[in-house]
Amino acid sequence: MKSVGINGYGTIGKRVADAVSAQDDMKIVGVTKRSPDFEARMAVEKGYDLYISVPERESSFEEAGIKVTGTADELLEKLDIVVDCTPEGIGAKNKEGTYEKMGLKAIFQGGEKHDQIGLSFNSFSNYNDVIGKDYARVVSCNTTGLCRTLNPINDLCGIKKVRAVMVRRGADPGQVKKGPINAIVPNPPTVPSHHGPDVQTVMYDLNITTMALLVPTTLMHQHNLMVELESSVSVDDIKEKLNETPRVLLLKAGEGLTSTAGFMEYAKDLGRSRNDLFEIGVWEESLNIVDGELYYMQAIHQESDVVPENVDAIRAMLEMEDDPSKSIQKTNKAMGIL
Amino acid sequence: MKSVGINGYGTIGKRVADAVSAQDDMKIVGVTKRSPDFEARMAVEKGYDLYISVPERESSFEEAGIKVTGTADELLEKLDIVVDCTPEGIGAKNKEGTYEKMGLKAIFQGGEKHDQIGLSFNSFSNYNDVIGKDYARVVSCNTTGLCRTLNPINDLCGIKKVRAVMVRRGADPGQVKKGPINAIVPNPPTVPSHHGPDVQTVMYDLNITTMALLVPTTLMHQHNLMVELESSVSVDDIKEKLNETPRVLLLKAGEGLTSTAGFMEYAKDLGRSRNDLFEIGVWEESLNIVDGELYYMQAIHQESDVVPENVDAIRAMLEMEDDPSKSIQKTNKAMGIL
Amino acid sequence: MKSVGINGYGTIGKRVADAVSAQDDMKIVGVTKRSPDFEARMAVEKGYDLYISVPERESSFEEAGIKVTGTADELLEKLDIVVDCTPEGIGAKNKEGTYEKMGLKAIFQGGEKHDQIGLSFNSFSNYNDVIGKDYARVVSCNTTGLCRTLNPINDLCGIKKVRAVMVRRGADPGQVKKGPINAIVPNPPTVPSHHGPDVQTVMYDLNITTMALLVPTTLMHQHNLMVELESSVSVDDIKEKLNETPRVLLLKAGEGLTSTAGFMEYAKDLGRSRNDLFEIGVWEESLNIVDGELYYMQAIHQESDVVPENVDAIRAMLEMEDDPSKSIQKTNKAMGIL
Amino acid sequence: MKSVGINGYGTIGKRVADAVSAQDDMKIVGVTKRSPDFEARMAVEKGYDLYISVPERESSFEEAGIKVTGTADELLEKLDIVVDCTPEGIGAKNKEGTYEKMGLKAIFQGGEKHDQIGLSFNSFSNYNDVIGKDYARVVSCNTTGLCRTLNPINDLCGIKKVRAVMVRRGADPGQVKKGPINAIVPNPPTVPSHHGPDVQTVMYDLNITTMALLVPTTLMHQHNLMVELESSVSVDDIKEKLNETPRVLLLKAGEGLTSTAGFMEYAKDLGRSRNDLFEIGVWEESLNIVDGELYYMQAIHQESDVVPENVDAIRAMLEMEDDPSKSIQKTNKAMGIL
Ligand SMILES: NC(=O)c1ccc[n+]([C@@H]2O[C@H](COP(=O)([O-])OP(=O)(O)OC[C@H]3O[C@@H](n4cnc5c(N)ncnc54)[C@H](O)[C@@H]3O)[C@@H](O)[C@H]2O)c1
Ligand SMILES: NC(=O)c1ccc[n+]([C@@H]2O[C@H](COP(=O)([O-])OP(=O)(O)OC[C@H]3O[C@@H](n4cnc5c(N)ncnc54)[C@H](O)[C@@H]3O)[C@@H](O)[C@H]2O)c1
Ligand SMILES: NC(=O)c1ccc[n+]([C@@H]2O[C@H](COP(=O)([O-])OP(=O)(O)OC[C@H]3O[C@@H](n4cnc5c(N)ncnc54)[C@H](O)[C@@H]3O)[C@@H](O)[C@H]2O)c1
Ligand SMILES: NC(=O)c1ccc[n+]([C@@H]2O[C@H](COP(=O)([O-])OP(=O)(O)OC[C@H]3O[C@@H](n4cnc5c(N)ncnc54)[C@H](O)[C@@H]3O)[C@@H](O)[C@H]2O)c1
Repeated sequence: MKSVGINGYGTIGKRVADAVSAQDDMKIVGVTKRSPDFEARMAVEKGYDLYISVPERESSFEEAGIKVTGTADELLEKLDIVVDCTPEGIGAKNKEGTYEKMGLKAIFQGGEKHDQIGLSFNSFSNYNDVIGKDYARVVSCNTTGLCRTLNPINDLCGIKKVRAVMVRRGADPGQVKKGPINAIVPNPPTVPSHHGPDVQTVMYDLNITTMALLVPTTLMHQHNLMVELESSVSVDDIKEKLNETPRVLLLKAGEGLTSTAGFMEYAKDLGRSRNDLFEIGVWEESLNIVDGELYYMQAIHQESDVVPENVDAIRAMLEMEDDPSKSIQKTNKAMGIL
Repeated sequence: MKSVGINGYGTIGKRVADAVSAQDDMKIVGVTKRSPDFEARMAVEKGYDLYISVPERESSFEEAGIKVTGTADELLEKLDIVVDCTPEGIGAKNKEGTYEKMGLKAIFQGGEKHDQIGLSFNSFSNYNDVIGKDYARVVSCNTTGLCRTLNPINDLCGIKKVRAVMVRRGADPGQVKKGPINAIVPNPPTVPSHHGPDVQTVMYDLNITTMALLVPTTLMHQHNLMVELESSVSVDDIKEKLNETPRVLLLKAGEGLTSTAGFMEYAKDLGRSRNDLFEIGVWEESLNIVDGELYYMQAIHQESDVVPENVDAIRAMLEMEDDPSKSIQKTNKAMGIL
Repeated sequence: MKSVGINGYGTIGKRVADAVSAQDDMKIVGVTKRSPDFEARMAVEKGYDLYISVPERESSFEEAGIKVTGTADELLEKLDIVVDCTPEGIGAKNKEGTYEKMGLKAIFQGGEKHDQIGLSFNSFSNYNDVIGKDYARVVSCNTTGLCRTLNPINDLCGIKKVRAVMVRRGADPGQVKKGPINAIVPNPPTVPSHHGPDVQTVMYDLNITTMALLVPTTLMHQHNLMVELESSVSVDDIKEKLNETPRVLLLKAGEGLTSTAGFMEYAKDLGRSRNDLFEIGVWEESLNIVDGELYYMQAIHQESDVVPENVDAIRAMLEMEDDPSKSIQKTNKAMGIL
Repeated sequence: MKSVGINGYGTIGKRVADAVSAQDDMKIVGVTKRSPDFEARMAVEKGYDLYISVPERESSFEEAGIKVTGTADELLEKLDIVVDCTPEGIGAKNKEGTYEKMGLKAIFQGGEKHDQIGLSFNSFSNYNDVIGKDYARVVSCNTTGLCRTLNPINDLCGIKKVRAVMVRRGADPGQVKKGPINAIVPNPPTVPSHHGPDVQTVMYDLNITTMALLVPTTLMHQHNLMVELESSVSVDDIKEKLNETPRVLLLKAGEGLTSTAGFMEYAKDLGRSRNDLFEIGVWEESLNIVDGELYYMQAIHQESDVVPENVDAIRAMLEMEDDPSKSIQKTNKAMGIL
């Protein structure tokens, strides 16, 4: 039973906490929070021990009636590994300033730069390269989404070149201060975007060019893929391959799943906690091959797709399992992932 | 164990089905669907027997691999009561064309007109008047939301006059064809709106005037209330009263619950299935009394607030419980409502 | 011919510049900009002399090929009055740090606090109190909107008490970084909001209570008004009064103007530059009187409604005209306002 | 002076009316309307003679005080050519049922099917093929946008293959009943979309594959282009070519034009009537060539980009000018197009 802590109990952190708790070979020792907000309150109500990042603020937690177990530093002492889910840029500082000094293993999220962490991770792409390592970064939600479908396609028939246009959600549902409200924003306005090189931190040899933009929606990212294939296969071969790939779902617009909102409704009907869709949803009707090039559209639930990857990364880094597919299966079973 | 069926397994119907299944004194015998879409598929995967409204379409369900148990008419024969959750206007037709002829008791939703059903229902307002009746309409999501907080306030200190401005969500999350995308729409553009009279179908003597509009959001309705009180009370008296009222929650903007999106995030953290917030959320900071007039802001999760009311209505109409507060408590406990 | 300068050529500043240029008794000597962006480029293309607020940045303007005439300080020397249209909070600093020291008259916008400027202005409410004064603040877009319709109603029949719920646009069209994307945000979440007291800075004795929220739209604010009247009038009396009031338009939902987007489409069909609707649009169908209380809905084009008020404020402060209605008429005629 | 009429004075129709009126070799004889709404009222106020499509409704126009000159049939008798701007599908019916029988030349819009009209038109692609013809369809706003930039690129260096992902606005600003409010909708969910073949109705030999989706915005469509080039050129060559191409604008995100909302703001600053951007805006920073493939992002103002093409089509079909570039120049000059 490995001891895991969450540094930064926010959108990603609270989901990783629940996912770790669902496993039988690891447990959450505690989570950290900076402010006595509703997320802190709910963490305690859920039974997580709460450690605070800013010790001076203890009285504000007390006033709010939220029980504090100790400081973040005290939590870190008790761990086999920490999953750092702090906002973009903080993780790299924590690595240098804290974890390295303590000799504590740590997993980071996609907001950190690959170069600052030194190693990136995706369960299907390079699990073996991360076994026993001290620091790794689970690639971002978008990159994870690309890897999930490109890996099996590459395995099936080889990939010559990928072009992807990524239509990203402007903000997470709870982030009400972020826009845009009524505009399409090239982001970045330069081409190619950084997403291609990010994929290459885990799928080392993939030839990929990406373009990205932001649109006024909070639910999911949507990706448009154009994949030149090395060897000739049929659309049915691709469907079969994706159907047997874990964490990928073929969903039918024809059955009413016509949009990212439809995919979220599907996750609700699945009874998923927090309405999470850990799997990448691919519109089945969009799959087509023309002149040796595969086209498809997929959607990524940015708040949750990286969560099972964090669990697998724990197993790899703590050398709990050296077969990636066994970890993936174990994680999935515990989390109810299809 | 009373036998209940759902006619129209959509946004409201699927939630009522789950809520009924959670009770120990009633059960779902079956649900009806018109088309073999993902909702039909998920109904069967959840274990509900599926009956089809359009018998000629049986083959299309078969082709999609969705198991059909019988026709809607066959389902109705097996029931003590049907909860009609079909779209606006269909329910009244079903009453006249089918349920009355069969002598089957039926509950309708807020899309139907009060006059066509003859009796309306809200658990806190007029439960006793519905006991043993054959037909009743659970008032709409907005009206239910108004009753939930106005009833306890009326009990506490009497209400002279209510003014309410209702800022309504443009469409449910899954309804991607409906707008507005970027506009505020007076709806209706006449004042007062029909919501005031609708409240009066269950709070018979309330003096209330309402104005309503649509805005580009899918999550919740938001209400702005101005309530002239009969007797003098303090804001703390109101807070205490609302705190002890079931199906009402005081939530703090100061704890990060600054918007309807924050309320939905809170429901996710509560672990609610489908992310439902059956309770009316009142912003605690908004409660204020100036010159004998109470002001507050509340939000209504339109997809789910009427669901526990449907369960209570079943108990009233089938004479299973004649104390409203006992039914409310029983429903709440089974559904995990606060 | 009075010499006017614009400090801060942004959303409001560029419109005031054009409005001043359209008058025959005042002219724009120059406008200030901080960065060489497209607004700076277009200012020069329109023929405005550009003065820069941050002299060190001159080379960046040169590189971009945008002609600079001088520094902001040089511009201020040449003026009879400056219209300060800098972002919220900067204006008050400029007053103390610059304009007072130079002895330069200045007009500020609604983002500044009344207390820091000492005097507020609305053409219809307190023009006379501003004649000859050195500093005044044109009240905010929302407050201007309230004054525009409440003044004539007060004149007609007296106002006992106003309740207003203000549904505000989340961001201006160009502000793509601001949300919310999909939420309703009580703003402030306390009641009453500051808008009531702001109205009282120009309509000194009005009894008014307001509630305010933000919604995901960029076009216009929408106001819901409930006005208890002192003396008895008919709806037709109100219509007649508003119809003869300048800068107010009665518009019909029944003619297709069903939303704030419809009002903007109407401004386009009017041939307005920048699609501006300087007038407050009132939905004619919404006007109703019940039990001595007047109800109505109106919409405010936040980017432009305060613009003619800035022109009138110039006339008052420079003692160019001591009859408010003459200034209003002159401004309107030059700008094509109805 | 040729006599032109507009059948269907809506979003496109009213703009074509103004564009034709701005020319010195053609004039608007009248426009048709079905209902006495604000657009009808404004048409008359602008000085257009109004003819009604549903003669029985004359009294409703009278009641509204909107002057009617005659019936649509009476208008058609007076014309050299009609520009049909009725909604999708009506135009083809008018062709068969009315125009062909009268022997009246007619231009249709992109909502009609190419096969039903028999000939499609884009000023830069196939002007010569339309000279003297009786019926032609101006291709849709999206197709026009693709032609505007692909034509000059093809001229410069030849195109091997185009891949385009088109992120489309969900509805026009005034269409408040259409969504989506908060979702991304593959539209169509099959690949390739119909837009590629539509381009081939005017750029006959272009190798092009497209994918399309809808997002919750009203302002502009956004296109992501990946163009394999035949011969080697530099990014600067492309910029130079596009810069000298009429109806195309290179705009800089770095100057604040970071989104489709920025482009619309730019059109406002240009002083364009109705805020129209007839030109296709290309983000200059997005232009890049990697491995012989050109990448760029552009935005299309769906309400106005086809308008100058309608004017050119009139000249071609009435044999008023046989040099496309002369017609383009003449149209542009009259309309103030860059
Ligand atoms: N939200 C997404 O869609 C998403 C998807 C994939 C990856 N990520 C990445 O995950 C990471 C976390 O993002 P998030 O969306 O969960 O953020 P978040 O803002 O929801 O949560 C961050 C948490 O960290 C806490 N925190 C802030 N500063 C801290 C500090 N200095 N020390 C300790 N705790 C601190 C906050 O209180 C909060 O609880 C980022 O790297 C992000 O790029 C986010
Ligand atoms: N969605 C809300 O926010 C909400 C809230 C409160 C009340 N209501 C009311 O609840 C009722 C149902 O609304 P909803 O949002 O669940 O609708 P919905 O469209 O989500 O579901 C309606 C269901 O009825 C089925 N149906 C349609 N026509 C039918 C017919 N002729 N016979 C049998 N079944 C048919 C549909 O297939 C669908 O499964 C309406 O009266 C509505 O006004 C809705
Ligand atoms: N936008 C609206 O809807 C609106 C409506 C009514 C009133 N107002 C008020 O008008 C004022 C201006 O708002 P806006 O929306 O036009 O802002 P804006 O951001 O569009 O424009 C502000 C301009 O000031 C310039 N600027 C910024 N800092 C400066 C400084 N230190 N010195 C000189 N110039 C500086 C900016 O470059 C920009 O050109 C604010 O007080 C605001 O509250 C705005
Ligand atoms: N709006 C766009 O973004 C856009 C862009 C390019 C092309 N188009 C195409 O232009 C055409 C017109 O579209 P729109 O957006 O201007 O539509 P619209 O709805 O704004 O205007 C259509 C006009 O036609 C009138 N009309 C409706 N039915 C009629 C009938 N039976 N006979 C005569 N008039 C009738 C309506 O009253 C209205 O005035 C369509 O083919 C559309 O696909 C639209």
